[in-house]
Amino acid sequence: MLWSSFYLPTLKEAPAEAEVVSHRLMLRAGMIRKLTSGVYAYMPYGNMAINKVADIVRQEMNRAGAVELSLPMVQPADLWRESGRWVHYGKELLRFKDRHERECCLGPTHEEVIVSILRGELRSYRQLPLNLYQIQTKFRDEIRPRFGLLRGREFIMKDAYSFDRDDEGAERSYKAMYDAYARIFTRLGLRFRAVEADSGSIGGKFSHEFMLLANTGEDTIAVCSACDYATNLERAAVTPRGGKNSLPPPPLEEISTPGVKSIEELCLFLDVPPDRTLKTMFFDVDGKVVAVLVRGDRVVNGIKVKNYFDAALAELLPPEKMAEIGAPAGFAGPLNLAADYILADHELEEGGGWIAGAGKTGFHVKNLDLERDARVSAYADLRLLTAEDPCPRCGASLELTRGIEVGHTFKLGVKYSAAMKAYFLDENSLERPLVMGCYGIGVTRVVAACIEQNHDADGIIFPPAIAPFAVEILNLDPKSGKVTEKALEIYDIIRGSKLDVLLDDREERPGVKFKDADLLGSPMQVIIGARGLERGIVEVKNRRSGAKAELSAVNFAAGFELWKDRLLEEWSPRPSV
Amino acid sequence: MLWSSFYLPTLKEAPAEAEVVSHRLMLRAGMIRKLTSGVYAYMPYGNMAINKVADIVRQEMNRAGAVELSLPMVQPADLWRESGRWVHYGKELLRFKDRHERECCLGPTHEEVIVSILRGELRSYRQLPLNLYQIQTKFRDEIRPRFGLLRGREFIMKDAYSFDRDDEGAERSYKAMYDAYARIFTRLGLRFRAVEADSGSIGGKFSHEFMLLANTGEDTIAVCSACDYATNLERAAVTPRGGKNSLPPPPLEEISTPGVKSIEELCLFLDVPPDRTLKTMFFDVDGKVVAVLVRGDRVVNGIKVKNYFDAALAELLPPEKMAEIGAPAGFAGPLNLAADYILADHELEEGGGWIAGAGKTGFHVKNLDLERDARVSAYADLRLLTAEDPCPRCGASLELTRGIEVGHTFKLGVKYSAAMKAYFLDENSLERPLVMGCYGIGVTRVVAACIEQNHDADGIIFPPAIAPFAVEILNLDPKSGKVTEKALEIYDIIRGSKLDVLLDDREERPGVKFKDADLLGSPMQVIIGARGLERGIVEVKNRRSGAKAELSAVNFAAGFELWKDRLLEEWSPRPSV
Repeated sequence: MLWSSFYLPTLKEAPAEAEVVSHRLMLRAGMIRKLTSGVYAYMPYGNMAINKVADIVRQEMNRAGAVELSLPMVQPADLWRESGRWVHYGKELLRFKDRHERECCLGPTHEEVIVSILRGELRSYRQLPLNLYQIQTKFRDEIRPRFGLLRGREFIMKDAYSFDRDDEGAERSYKAMYDAYARIFTRLGLRFRAVEADSGSIGGKFSHEFMLLANTGEDTIAVCSACDYATNLERAAVTPRGGKNSLPPPPLEEISTPGVKSIEELCLFLDVPPDRTLKTMFFDVDGKVVAVLVRGDRVVNGIKVKNYFDAALAELLPPEKMAEIGAPAGFAGPLNLAADYILADHELEEGGGWIAGAGKTGFHVKNLDLERDARVSAYADLRLLTAEDPCPRCGASLELTRGIEVGHTFKLGVKYSAAMKAYFLDENSLERPLVMGCYGIGVTRVVAACIEQNHDADGIIFPPAIAPFAVEILNLDPKSGKVTEKALEIYDIIRGSKLDVLLDDREERPGVKFKDADLLGSPMQVIIGARGLERGIVEVKNRRSGAKAELSAVNFAAGFELWKDRLLEEWSPRPSV
Repeated sequence: MLWSSFYLPTLKEAPAEAEVVSHRLMLRAGMIRKLTSGVYAYMPYGNMAINKVADIVRQEMNRAGAVELSLPMVQPADLWRESGRWVHYGKELLRFKDRHERECCLGPTHEEVIVSILRGELRSYRQLPLNLYQIQTKFRDEIRPRFGLLRGREFIMKDAYSFDRDDEGAERSYKAMYDAYARIFTRLGLRFRAVEADSGSIGGKFSHEFMLLANTGEDTIAVCSACDYATNLERAAVTPRGGKNSLPPPPLEEISTPGVKSIEELCLFLDVPPDRTLKTMFFDVDGKVVAVLVRGDRVVNGIKVKNYFDAALAELLPPEKMAEIGAPAGFAGPLNLAADYILADHELEEGGGWIAGAGKTGFHVKNLDLERDARVSAYADLRLLTAEDPCPRCGASLELTRGIEVGHTFKLGVKYSAAMKAYFLDENSLERPLVMGCYGIGVTRVVAACIEQNHDADGIIFPPAIAPFAVEILNLDPKSGKVTEKALEIYDIIRGSKLDVLLDDREERPGVKFKDADLLGSPMQVIIGARGLERGIVEVKNRRSGAKAELSAVNFAAGFELWKDRLLEEWSPRPSV
């Protein structure tokens, strides 16, 4: 593509509204333009990147045996009433009436639609398994859309729906999708992890989030340095280390700690490290008061408290209730407490001689032994994982990193097929509900997340598989016939090797072209100027490493081939699941 | 693709609601399923046909220098207020409010969106010309959606928008799109005509409808047998033949015609052919009464009457008004008439001695000479074209045929750019509005119209370029290892020649497979059975001609290659514009 035949409106500055780097760079590189809140036009350069991702997704879905179709964006309300989601989905489901006053919505997902279409005709066990997918535009009326394509209202998604006769089949279908996802993100050249997700209320252990690793990610994930374990921090189990203190501590002793209201102040006041202290947090769990003890340097994980009781609700006890139960703010502890339950984290089984609030204002205690001095209801896994904890699967060390969710695989079971009466007949002519799975990839989100992961101060650094143009040629002297001729010759050579290539043929200063090339982020740059040609050379630049090399202008094809292969090798897929 | 790995739910009968053949066949062939009124799921087989069309559209748009992007489906109301269409578009524009009560609509077309995005940044004459296109889902809330994909509410369209600095440039852009459209429909293997369309109120002669020829089409078009002239019948000009009668007729004579109320009855009563009689129709044209005279065997074209006066409104005069002006029903004529204008069709300049209503109940006149006996205000082109008229361009004979509009090219001028203030700076730094064109192809409609054009009693007959599978292999004896082995061998051979191929490997009777293959409409069928293999042959069938041939099972590849090339040659593009 010649720049002059393309439409590539680069910007020096991004509009102030752009908060994150991918949003800023996509605006500056002319990839997207905002139409209205959370709704973007995919401009030619952005559209190409989206299509590169979509093509690889499509290839791998086909390879995994899924069959492509395309479902409508406008959906009738009645289907959502059948599944129960018309009421439960909330305001993200954009609802409206058509000219005949029929209630409709814009599809944020397509479980209802696919089930309604198949239930009439997917009737025999011989038609199973079946996996149907689409790559299609969705709409979710987010209350606060932001971050460009990371959290838009209108977006492109690949969604697949598998249908099986039983759980075993559904697990095979799930595995095939999991493997396809791993291949997709590997082929795209992205660093990612498949993270076990909490799927408590839906059932089954078969739920994974696929996270692209990026410092700017919204989620924190813990990744094992040795095995393939990875988990969302909020959901990470902590393995108890076992072992107890052999010697009981000296007797409990009250100490006056006037004005000391936090663990930090306590440690300063007594000159002890925080891991010698206890922290007590109070929750209202379905109406019961629960005190939760963790080490002073740990953080209580509210989700674990809720899951421990399998509760509908678990929230922090409001301050006004604390006094009532003998928990004065800043001086609460496991003593003198009127809580319904006192839970302690597993970690507290092995230590002793704790420092904790005394349960009366202005005092703490030391030499606290939980078994001797307190009445703990139970020990459990109640805290957030930290980087010091070992991998719960293999015991190796963990790393905390941040990620962006770009895919989700889900074993649905019979949730929708039972509600919407999608039955098939088995070999014995017995009617049974279809066992389903659903599998999503946010295609437009992948492009934005890819940029969060791959950029520097100068702009985007596209992996070759996603780059709209794997190569950009910079003609530094477009007014020179000789340079332009060589640029076009090289353009044809590179196109001949099946690479997408952009030739910057604008009448602009070299500085503008260098800046724009770095901004646009083609992994390979070929720089052609009059001075280089006089010396018989053309310069090539590896956008990611910044490394430059000089290639013979006369034997460009051979030199480029070698250089390109080495660069692609650096980017080549390394499975990272 | 193996049938057993695909999802291809064929039906013996189409649901009763399907009124036209493409709708019935697309349902029966498992191409579409209805979700709600005018909204269809594109099932895998239908989705493939749509993608085949979209791919060729995309290739030819790119070849013509247009650049692809993708615009949102949800659009803000404010843009439509700027262009004035929020009020004028009517109920086909589906409007709604989002969760923050902002007014939006679903895009039925994208002039407003593209202009709003470009007006901030397409600022210099050096960026022109520019042509941007997308292939995207649109929604028009049709009052009575029907005929499946021929008149749906949700549909896929290719829409392109060109931007030029002046009319000359816009005409070049228009011509490039016109040529691209001709290449697209030619490559798709469809019989079509580019028809000059009435673009009175938009200005310029640059508007064409691209019509697929099909007996079931909604529009009648007149096509020249010699030159490339083609026109929508409603808009077809009729060329006056010139020449006048040399002899004046005998004097006017009144004849009693009791109870004769129509041209047919008059001709029977007097035993004369209808081309000796005059027909008089009455119109209310912006409040004036206009009498229109045409030959008794002709049909008045109301659009021409309206255009003659450049009127806002032209409709038939209601019967109760007819008596007031001396036009008794059945006996009205150009005599004794209180009309504001009497217009006569050009054709009436050359004849004489007409028979017409006398202007009083129960009587007609004969020997009427318009110049002598009536006061005709003007002669003009006022009637519908017929097959007897000569081509207005070259004089050769015309053919009337029916067609389905699948594309429209349009020179917009500055309608949107002026209303929405989309200006660029010319060489002299003068601000000028962008000169626009827009160009649409109904991608999903093309697939349906293709089937209207190409089918028989047994099912679809896909042109090779649109067929989801160019070849279908029928394994008649799937339980025979030998037959199955040969079928798979041939499947691999055909896939190797880059053709999309479907292998019917189901455990079904041969009759079911024959019927389904004809229904699905792959242009080539390869039929493999135990009996044939015993004789060393495999049968091939040309779906369109029905011609069968036997190929050697051993040397299948060579024989198939020859047969295939001959069949594709039959389908090969013949430019038909």
